[in-house]
Amino acid sequence: MKTIEWREDGVYIIDQTKLPHQLVLIKCEDYERIAIAIERMEIRGAPAIGVAAAMGIALAAKKVANCGSLEEIKKELDKAWRRLQRTRPTARNLFWALERMKSAWSSADSPSQIVKKVVDEAIKISEEDVAACRAIGKFGAELISDGDRILTHCNAGGLACVEYGTALGVIRAAHESGKKIFVYASETRPLLQGARLTAFELKTEGIPFKLITDNMAAHLMQRRLIDKVLVGADRITRDGYVFNKIGTYGLALLAKAHGLPFYVAAPVSTIDLDITPDRVIIEERDPNEVLYINNVRIAPEGTKALNPAFDMTPGELVSAIITDKGVAYPPYDLSLLLRQRN
Amino acid sequence: MKTIEWREDGVYIIDQTKLPHQLVLIKCEDYERIAIAIERMEIRGAPAIGVAAAMGIALAAKKVANCGSLEEIKKELDKAWRRLQRTRPTARNLFWALERMKSAWSSADSPSQIVKKVVDEAIKISEEDVAACRAIGKFGAELISDGDRILTHCNAGGLACVEYGTALGVIRAAHESGKKIFVYASETRPLLQGARLTAFELKTEGIPFKLITDNMAAHLMQRRLIDKVLVGADRITRDGYVFNKIGTYGLALLAKAHGLPFYVAAPVSTIDLDITPDRVIIEERDPNEVLYINNVRIAPEGTKALNPAFDMTPGELVSAIITDKGVAYPPYDLSLLLRQRN
Repeated sequence: MKTIEWREDGVYIIDQTKLPHQLVLIKCEDYERIAIAIERMEIRGAPAIGVAAAMGIALAAKKVANCGSLEEIKKELDKAWRRLQRTRPTARNLFWALERMKSAWSSADSPSQIVKKVVDEAIKISEEDVAACRAIGKFGAELISDGDRILTHCNAGGLACVEYGTALGVIRAAHESGKKIFVYASETRPLLQGARLTAFELKTEGIPFKLITDNMAAHLMQRRLIDKVLVGADRITRDGYVFNKIGTYGLALLAKAHGLPFYVAAPVSTIDLDITPDRVIIEERDPNEVLYINNVRIAPEGTKALNPAFDMTPGELVSAIITDKGVAYPPYDLSLLLRQRN
Repeated sequence: MKTIEWREDGVYIIDQTKLPHQLVLIKCEDYERIAIAIERMEIRGAPAIGVAAAMGIALAAKKVANCGSLEEIKKELDKAWRRLQRTRPTARNLFWALERMKSAWSSADSPSQIVKKVVDEAIKISEEDVAACRAIGKFGAELISDGDRILTHCNAGGLACVEYGTALGVIRAAHESGKKIFVYASETRPLLQGARLTAFELKTEGIPFKLITDNMAAHLMQRRLIDKVLVGADRITRDGYVFNKIGTYGLALLAKAHGLPFYVAAPVSTIDLDITPDRVIIEERDPNEVLYINNVRIAPEGTKALNPAFDMTPGELVSAIITDKGVAYPPYDLSLLLRQRN
């Protein structure tokens, strides 16, 4: 089962807000529904958001292909493009996928060709993501030892991608290769992606794990119950600054204090060579995501909350960045890795 | 309003599991109900648990005073004592208060005298706690500067004591003295004492604050939004090792990484001179406290969770320990502070 899938009659996504208790598919028939799904985090995870945005453009092209001139169609795709670009600001893959889609439709010179070009490109982005996760798994598994107890945060699993996952891809690959590993999944407040999604994937996969609250990590490290920390990423700068789910930076500091390796797994499409860390926008989400859990208010009326969805981990705290093009080590210059691509 | 109060017809406690949405009192008429209230965390916080245990002994004495010989009464008190001692293992104040109660009844030489002795002693322990929190506030407020933005964890407030609080006592005293302070309250999973109780107290007091999830602390420190960290304690060893709510140790490491002071506020009754850090029992509570929030399961069926309720912060990470007898600084020998008592 894929997190997101292109079918003849629409884009099907697993509604991640309903997991783990219900496995429900959402059928998206236009780009607006895709945009809403990204905003509501019905689909989330940087690679999955990128694929969703690409498929949103493909849906837009299909809908208007028979309704006007090439210029009119491109104008409509531009509208879809701008809408999708506004959904969430932090994950690099969203903007990367949208750029690829724009290149694809720019070269089209007829209405019929434009649909084929963008649909093909969206499917290609999706297929490349599957291959990238497998490659990440292969490269990353070499860093995992038999018997390792690995702490992961949030969900960098198949549900954050098309399938297989980045950090969980590494864990899956190590598990599949016969290494005996144990995972600690931090629940990841406010939206509990660790408790809901990572636990769901690990359980389905039969990989042994335990759930902890986010504030237990340091204690487990002190008790020497954790060997390695392994997380995903939403955006990585040239010099290895990692933007990922809120709480990641704290785990990186705790890993350093206990002498533990801190690994980040992500496809190269998450790397942004053109931005400096201070210019990355950290999305601030609705405080009600903190103030309510399962629609029940946890704090007194009138309480205000902060809700930054991501944080920044400086490259010096990252022991290695595991990508589909290989593993990079500090001091980072990730342009080297991207050059290998060609 | 007091967290716990001795009245003629029983011991009244605020049911902290119902806050912040309902303010409900529980009337305890025997020691067994007190023991259950401690186990269920209807009353929690090291100083409050100590007072509750003392009042539990007093209830036991009242109940059996007319039913037997002095020896029979002492036997019954011993039974209550053992029951109360088994409720929770980590907070020093529970054992400290029970020791004081045993001393009080040991010297009694008639059934009528024994009731008076233990009731007087329980009320004295309660009154001393109120005075201790005021003294902690007075000493601690000197460490707080005008404009400070203080991160606190869990609830070390009036609800963790009889009233006023330890860490929140310092915050209250600073606020009352006219210093403009801002508090970040971490929600404190699994039982959300920060979101439920600390937010309730700060809101009632009119002290400005915002709620964060536990995993946001490092990000806020990185953004220079926090000046000081200030928490309570459940047990402190002679050399300044602090046992407190799970998550405290992580905050201490994060404070160190950002060059921020990390303060602990507690009455001297929390100090245990006779134990080494490795021998302190960290209570492991029901995993369902992690797996369910407001009776709704957050993780897939079959998921296992860890639930250590406390962690250990080494003395070298603690910038100062604020007690009712004064402020201690590292390297700690807290026996000096206790000697000042006499």
